[in-house]
Amino acid sequence: MPSPDLSILIIDENRIRASIIEEGLREAGYARVAVIHDVNEVGRTISQTTPDVVFIDLENPKRDTLEHFFSLSRAIQRPIAMFVDRSDGTMIEKAVEAGVSAYVVDGLKKERVKPILDMAISRFNAFSRLSRELEEARSALEERKIVDQAKGILMKTRGLSEPEAYALLRKTAMNQNRRLIDIAQSLITAANLLGP
Amino acid sequence: MPSPDLSILIIDENRIRASIIEEGLREAGYARVAVIHDVNEVGRTISQTTPDVVFIDLENPKRDTLEHFFSLSRAIQRPIAMFVDRSDGTMIEKAVEAGVSAYVVDGLKKERVKPILDMAISRFNAFSRLSRELEEARSALEERKIVDQAKGILMKTRGLSEPEAYALLRKTAMNQNRRLIDIAQSLITAANLLGP
Repeated sequence: MPSPDLSILIIDENRIRASIIEEGLREAGYARVAVIHDVNEVGRTISQTTPDVVFIDLENPKRDTLEHFFSLSRAIQRPIAMFVDRSDGTMIEKAVEAGVSAYVVDGLKKERVKPILDMAISRFNAFSRLSRELEEARSALEERKIVDQAKGILMKTRGLSEPEAYALLRKTAMNQNRRLIDIAQSLITAANLLGP
Repeated sequence: MPSPDLSILIIDENRIRASIIEEGLREAGYARVAVIHDVNEVGRTISQTTPDVVFIDLENPKRDTLEHFFSLSRAIQRPIAMFVDRSDGTMIEKAVEAGVSAYVVDGLKKERVKPILDMAISRFNAFSRLSRELEEARSALEERKIVDQAKGILMKTRGLSEPEAYALLRKTAMNQNRRLIDIAQSLITAANLLGP
């Protein structure tokens, strides 16, 4: 459940629509809400104020504007809820790919702001978790390949068995207070430099 | 972009609301739309008709009903769009976790049906792709561990070098027309059975 301490930034050139979002948030108990009306200030404002969640309302954006905000979404790595008044399937797909957590077409209404906030946060968390797990699985595989390669070098050049090669890598890492993977990587680099 | 050939199932006890969704879909060019009004028939209907996308409208569901549909969502592995009239943060989070592709709180309107369909399909595809990548990365790591263990057994019991052990596994797999990972797994099982 989102905490009422969340800081929320609303970006909206239209003051009336911005106040609909703002009221929806205040009525749901969120007090740390900032609004900017100048769309050009967005990047700077976000990096200065580091809001927890960003609401962007664009009414009927041009394609360029929309794509600009999609790349912003990729960059800022936090929940974004975006309102547009209309959108075709292609732009919806792009919004999802850019990690826009809630992309609401034709649905700006005060009462809907709180569930959309909840939805944006939940989707963002679910997607982040899955992405993180993927990154961990991939780097575990990558590390294993590197360690295997390093073991192979030691087995060949020093005539060690596989457990001996592994033990040597491990001991070296402990002695040098470095990670085993870094020792393995250094060994591979050195072996390449020193030639066959 | 979703094809107009998509088959879509609408589940709604309320006939008026069902017809709003149905009209929204027909106006967007979807002709293969079926509607069922009996919520108890859902599981059977889905497995008989295998729709591409499912719309579920629940108005103000009891918690039990909602959770029932969440587990259905996990089971059927296709895009689901769900309409409810109100929902708290906890249920929204559960909907996301259950893989409900679009969970729309207080927003049933004919004009919104098409963008919600697009959104459900896009989110479903993005999430499926990420899940599949995670599964692939994890099973690659798992396979690597198994092959390593099998190589270790061969190196120890037959006094082979690592490349020799790998070559032997590979040759055996080719001769038996089986996957290398299966040969490795059989070897580990056998070694465990035969004792230390």
